Amino acid sequence: MLPTSETLADLSEGEVLARIFPRLPGSAAQLLGPGDDAAVMRAPDGRFVVTTDMMIQGPDFRLAWSSPHDLGWKAAATNLSDVAAMGARPTALVVAIAAPPSTPISVIEGIADGLRDCCEALAPGCGVVGGDLSASDALTLAVTAFGDLEGREPVLRSGARPGDVVALAGRLGEAAEGLDLLFRLAVDETGTPDAALAQALRAQHPDAVAAQLAPEPPIDRGPAAAAAGATAMLDVSDGLAIDAGRLARASGVGIDFTRSALGENVERALGGGEDHGLLATFPPGAVLPDGFRALGVVTDAAGRVLLDGRPHDQAGWDPYRGWDGAVV
Amino acid sequence: MLPTSETLADLSEGEVLARIFPRLPGSAAQLLGPGDDAAVMRAPDGRFVVTTDMMIQGPDFRLAWSSPHDLGWKAAATNLSDVAAMGARPTALVVAIAAPPSTPISVIEGIADGLRDCCEALAPGCGVVGGDLSASDALTLAVTAFGDLEGREPVLRSGARPGDVVALAGRLGEAAEGLDLLFRLAVDETGTPDAALAQALRAQHPDAVAAQLAPEPPIDRGPAAAAAGATAMLDVSDGLAIDAGRLARASGVGIDFTRSALGENVERALGGGEDHGLLATFPPGAVLPDGFRALGVVTDAAGRVLLDGRPHDQAGWDPYRGWDGAVV
Repeated sequence: MLPTSETLADLSEGEVLARIFPRLPGSAAQLLGPGDDAAVMRAPDGRFVVTTDMMIQGPDFRLAWSSPHDLGWKAAATNLSDVAAMGARPTALVVAIAAPPSTPISVIEGIADGLRDCCEALAPGCGVVGGDLSASDALTLAVTAFGDLEGREPVLRSGARPGDVVALAGRLGEAAEGLDLLFRLAVDETGTPDAALAQALRAQHPDAVAAQLAPEPPIDRGPAAAAAGATAMLDVSDGLAIDAGRLARASGVGIDFTRSALGENVERALGGGEDHGLLATFPPGAVLPDGFRALGVVTDAAGRVLLDGRPHDQAGWDPYRGWDGAVV
Repeated sequence: MLPTSETLADLSEGEVLARIFPRLPGSAAQLLGPGDDAAVMRAPDGRFVVTTDMMIQGPDFRLAWSSPHDLGWKAAATNLSDVAAMGARPTALVVAIAAPPSTPISVIEGIADGLRDCCEALAPGCGVVGGDLSASDALTLAVTAFGDLEGREPVLRSGARPGDVVALAGRLGEAAEGLDLLFRLAVDETGTPDAALAQALRAQHPDAVAAQLAPEPPIDRGPAAAAAGATAMLDVSDGLAIDAGRLARASGVGIDFTRSALGENVERALGGGEDHGLLATFPPGAVLPDGFRALGVVTDAAGRVLLDGRPHDQAGWDPYRGWDGAVV
């Protein structure tokens, strides 16, 4: 039997873990890593930041489009982004994976490699300190991520004040463009996701497809924004307009975007989901940290999102309404 | 439409969260709870303990047997037990739930109630500080739990020394007895789990069925054991013999159980899974903390589990081999 055809059902849990552990990144903040009932982490300033997110085959990804490496990468990246959006530096992840017993061990190894490569690229020093393996029908990744505020106050959604500059680090609309391309051009005539078509599409549109399948959120800009005095910040996961609305309501302010700052496709910039950029507000006159660009200003139009001073309404992604039920 | 027939698909994510949040327990250690990109937790001694575990409809539970309240309870209890097994006091949980869009909101509310009641009963002050909602075909709960070592060193699996007393807090074999009863007596003639039969069984065998569906691990005995000088400890999740073997290998010692200490059904005590008791070792002559009873002694038979001095071998639960594929 070739090594790559080994499945989870062929190996004991201990054997699977022995395959995965050496591939995972260690955490610089770990006092005790995987192997006991729980891990023990350092929390140097007496606090830690924590967020959790689950990705499920079907509603959240298709195996014909995402490689195992993509899945591990994206599961890490989206959680790291939530940590960064508090102004914290990511320190560690714990990862629960559920998979059908027929899953090749190479899939789990690929996920582990994606987790490692994402941490090394976007959040050096952040590692995997624990996890869990279960059986399921649909491949499922549940990641919980931790961060260190390094003595700073967390940057909440609620701190924006009228007159602040609205700024963004990261891409806008590219992940949505990638998803749109995949649904239009990487499906066969029956509408079923197709791996070969996805691979060809990725060669043609590498930036958009990668923004969807293996995003590179600007993790280190979170702590940088906090250090530069950001008054509010959040991860742009459901589209700029939706997430700006959240920040606006939490802060009791308006967010007025400047159309000319939003690029060529303004609707996609405002509506596209899964950007995982960092939307932050800075006091008037603040020097924006490297990587942030101004998109508009904070106004006193409580809870409203505006475009060149006019109201802008935008429907959003909803996990129970947006899934077509397909799991291929 | 009756309120109880509302499903996840009928409500927006925000509406679902508004239903759940008021039911969840707050954490005494929380500086910032749900609602931002991440929570912020207190870590008073500059460290925190973390563990994660996923429960999936089918391999891990059947909806005909477990009520939503049971599911929330068990998801909390099993994670709290891993925290306690380090000698830490549980402080908080984050909970990711994936469910079919057709799931009644009352199911999610029941899970929230179970999480709350379990925290309040077994780990007062521990609360839910964050979470995630996703769509899936199979109901899935991924819980990550945190704990505070309160200035003590964590109690690892590796610290047992020959001559130590082997002791247990919690039940032995009852959860396995409960599962056996359910599989024998709470299925219809086709072998399909049946809710009415399960309810009748629970009335007849309340302790065994509850030990399986809504276990009450002795969470506060973890910190108590640590304070009393436990040299090693772990959560008994896969059966006493299997888990004693883990402790024995990690410590490089043998564990010799005394048959007369294991109750009437010795095989079930040694083999039954999901007990979630705490197996700990204490220095010779130590006064065992309340709730612990001696089960044997630590020997120098490196890595071996013995029964009255004779080798005992025991096969164990494996997540990819133990599931029959049924998800009802």
